[in-house]
Amino acid sequence: MLFHVEMTVKIPHDSDVNFVNELKAKEKAMSQDLQRSGKWVDIWRIVGKYSNISIFNVESPAELHDILSNLPLFPFMEIEVKSLCKHYSSIKEGQL
Amino acid sequence: MLFHVEMTVKIPHDSDVNFVNELKAKEKAMSQDLQRSGKWVDIWRIVGKYSNISIFNVESPAELHDILSNLPLFPFMEIEVKSLCKHYSSIKEGQL
Amino acid sequence: MLFHVEMTVKIPHDSDVNFVNELKAKEKAMSQDLQRSGKWVDIWRIVGKYSNISIFNVESPAELHDILSNLPLFPFMEIEVKSLCKHYSSIKEGQL
Amino acid sequence: MLFHVEMTVKIPHDSDVNFVNELKAKEKAMSQDLQRSGKWVDIWRIVGKYSNISIFNVESPAELHDILSNLPLFPFMEIEVKSLCKHYSSIKEGQL
Amino acid sequence: MLFHVEMTVKIPHDSDVNFVNELKAKEKAMSQDLQRSGKWVDIWRIVGKYSNISIFNVESPAELHDILSNLPLFPFMEIEVKSLCKHYSSIKEGQL
Amino acid sequence: MLFHVEMTVKIPHDSDVNFVNELKAKEKAMSQDLQRSGKWVDIWRIVGKYSNISIFNVESPAELHDILSNLPLFPFMEIEVKSLCKHYSSIKEGQL
Amino acid sequence: MLFHVEMTVKIPHDSDVNFVNELKAKEKAMSQDLQRSGKWVDIWRIVGKYSNISIFNVESPAELHDILSNLPLFPFMEIEVKSLCKHYSSIKEGQL
Amino acid sequence: MLFHVEMTVKIPHDSDVNFVNELKAKEKAMSQDLQRSGKWVDIWRIVGKYSNISIFNVESPAELHDILSNLPLFPFMEIEVKSLCKHYSSIKEGQL
Amino acid sequence: MLFHVEMTVKIPHDSDVNFVNELKAKEKAMSQDLQRSGKWVDIWRIVGKYSNISIFNVESPAELHDILSNLPLFPFMEIEVKSLCKHYSSIKEGQL
Amino acid sequence: MLFHVEMTVKIPHDSDVNFVNELKAKEKAMSQDLQRSGKWVDIWRIVGKYSNISIFNVESPAELHDILSNLPLFPFMEIEVKSLCKHYSSIKEGQL
Repeated sequence: MLFHVEMTVKIPHDSDVNFVNELKAKEKAMSQDLQRSGKWVDIWRIVGKYSNISIFNVESPAELHDILSNLPLFPFMEIEVKSLCKHYSSIKEGQL
Repeated sequence: MLFHVEMTVKIPHDSDVNFVNELKAKEKAMSQDLQRSGKWVDIWRIVGKYSNISIFNVESPAELHDILSNLPLFPFMEIEVKSLCKHYSSIKEGQL
Repeated sequence: MLFHVEMTVKIPHDSDVNFVNELKAKEKAMSQDLQRSGKWVDIWRIVGKYSNISIFNVESPAELHDILSNLPLFPFMEIEVKSLCKHYSSIKEGQL
Repeated sequence: MLFHVEMTVKIPHDSDVNFVNELKAKEKAMSQDLQRSGKWVDIWRIVGKYSNISIFNVESPAELHDILSNLPLFPFMEIEVKSLCKHYSSIKEGQL
Repeated sequence: MLFHVEMTVKIPHDSDVNFVNELKAKEKAMSQDLQRSGKWVDIWRIVGKYSNISIFNVESPAELHDILSNLPLFPFMEIEVKSLCKHYSSIKEGQL
Repeated sequence: MLFHVEMTVKIPHDSDVNFVNELKAKEKAMSQDLQRSGKWVDIWRIVGKYSNISIFNVESPAELHDILSNLPLFPFMEIEVKSLCKHYSSIKEGQL
Repeated sequence: MLFHVEMTVKIPHDSDVNFVNELKAKEKAMSQDLQRSGKWVDIWRIVGKYSNISIFNVESPAELHDILSNLPLFPFMEIEVKSLCKHYSSIKEGQL
Repeated sequence: MLFHVEMTVKIPHDSDVNFVNELKAKEKAMSQDLQRSGKWVDIWRIVGKYSNISIFNVESPAELHDILSNLPLFPFMEIEVKSLCKHYSSIKEGQL
Repeated sequence: MLFHVEMTVKIPHDSDVNFVNELKAKEKAMSQDLQRSGKWVDIWRIVGKYSNISIFNVESPAELHDILSNLPLFPFMEIEVKSLCKHYSSIKEGQL
Repeated sequence: MLFHVEMTVKIPHDSDVNFVNELKAKEKAMSQDLQRSGKWVDIWRIVGKYSNISIFNVESPAELHDILSNLPLFPFMEIEVKSLCKHYSSIKEGQL
């Protein structure tokens, strides 16, 4: 099933630079693993913001929460989740 | 270039049913034409709402406005547009 | 899977009383059928409001949207959906 | 009587890790005691958030405030309380 | 138990004047009956608004909802309910 | 004249515990003095929150500001003031 | 005592023009009477809006509500009232 | 002096089409006259919305209000005005 | 020209007391100089808040920004500016 | 293509003054380079705020994000981006 997820990152300005860089590197690696596995279908940057909009394709809401809450930047993110389903105008077959 | 568009439809309750059905049929046809052309990349229903989230791939902001403002349901929609660009974690090549 | 749904009903004041009563009767019947089937797990009135908070247990987001969008009062409701999963403090077994 | 409670946890990023872990362990223990006693009827995680939605069954509003304000994480939570009553479509007998 | 209720009245401008005056007269009579019974402890006008702030002393949340939803102006009101309990600085004895 | 005041307390988590306890003790003493004098007519806790709703009966807006801005917790409070007057349905005589 | 009042006028588009013009003429006359009496100290238009910001100098909150609720446009206005008092930097003597 | 103005047009769906078209034609003519005169410096469409963002260069706030409140679509617009001044990074000479 | 300015002061709780007192003394002196010059026409305290509402009479928006941004407390203030003009009901001559 | 960008700067009060001044000097230099190149078409200060409104003319959304995210003050700014297109009333030729 598909979920629409908007993540906004807010890292305190006084954080240790090395610590933050390490978090970001781990975040990127984990995100790319999940993209390769087909779980994290899309990720885009919102222009002008330290935010992304992502589409996830998971087995259950629990799996989505498990993925999101294990992201290295999770403690620094505000996350909004919307559940998606097929639109009656969509021409894509067999989706959702 | 990619745009993230959220459309919420609010049709007055006292509208003529035939008029509304005709609008919806035209809207669906136009949406499917744009999907086939590759302009309207994705359209999903938000669960529980008369709203959709769509991804458009257009030549310019002007083209997007031209598409949206010519939708049959445009006078009855609240539309929010977000400009997207490539996320540094994205594994998709050549996109955006 | 479980969803938390908040529905607020706003019927125009100039609606026909018989039409509204018929809608409400159908809504109640459909709600009770869904409760008996185990899909609509809980429904509570929010004190002082023409709103309810409900818990649904469905097979998929698509099934939830199908249920909600077929409710007789759907055109008159504002609906907010939250996806739920098991809380690590919950003592309920095998749920979600 | 039933109350709907939404709790969002916001722990400062510079908190001592051991202190926080101890708080969370105490919170979990207290929550499970209250669940076993029947006071804390349900607790769910909202997908993607460090928030829960809970249903409490208490003797009085004062008892609910007493429970909430004694939770170990209370100083770090934003809490919204809604008073519930029986919905006229509910098929549950003798509840509320 | 005590509840804090804020009611804002919004009557459509094209309503029949006699109908509205009749509703207001019934609303006033019912309010004064409930004040005399001790259920509706206080009612104040918010300066500059067609709103009131009220304190109710009822047996249960269900009783409060029953009172509010039977007010003649209920279909035209937006109502916010807050559950109250004793403040540790209060000098009033035996209250709440 | 009567004022409706909602106070929400937000004390930084890294404040000195003794300092905070001293502030709270002074706040309670001052509140109770003002209650005994008849200036601070009512104070209730909002269930689930570190907030109170209070009714003040003062000689002037200036007196109310003087009272509020001298509360020991004033620097840590967000305060909303609403001016009240007699409601035409109120059965209380000679008030306001 | 002084009050800061912001009034926003929203007249339905289908109102009778003569009726509206009559209301506006009465509103202007009443406003100017109150200005001459010293009750309505200042009235300014907010640039670009059908709104005004006004300062009232009245004997009591009740008098202010009496004035505002008797304005011919009152049923078509959203009104926000703020209670004012002397600022410790103000050089005006004997005011408030 | 420069002002930033955002105008959102909301015309009721049941308006007479000829009346609306006439209003829009007059609006366009007046806007273009003001653009030619140098008062209305810029006007852009916000993509996806029936809104514009405009820059005005006027002699006074009163002149701006006079212009805006005489626009044919003024009764159907929500308008937000921001006062602008020279930014210390701007390389434009003699402006504002 | 007249501007309506609302300033809300938020000084971090861990600021040095002497530093803050010095800022406040300078702020008061500068405010009183500007009041004597006729630039800062009015300043009122909003009851219950560390906020003021002020009326400025300046030569240009640039002059207003220059005044506000040089206030000693400017870095600690949230400021909202509204441009004012003469109301057609105002009896004041030659103003604005 | 044109974008409307509103930037609000929020620098923590405990930041090192020299560090901040250096950031601001770099920000100003980079802004002026971009203005000279024609990318950053306009920049205005919003009166009373540490915010600017800017117009950018760029080749793509990606270029805009690249510019904004490399501004020295980017980590301290809240940025809102709106995509613009030609308004049908605009008299400017060949623009957008």
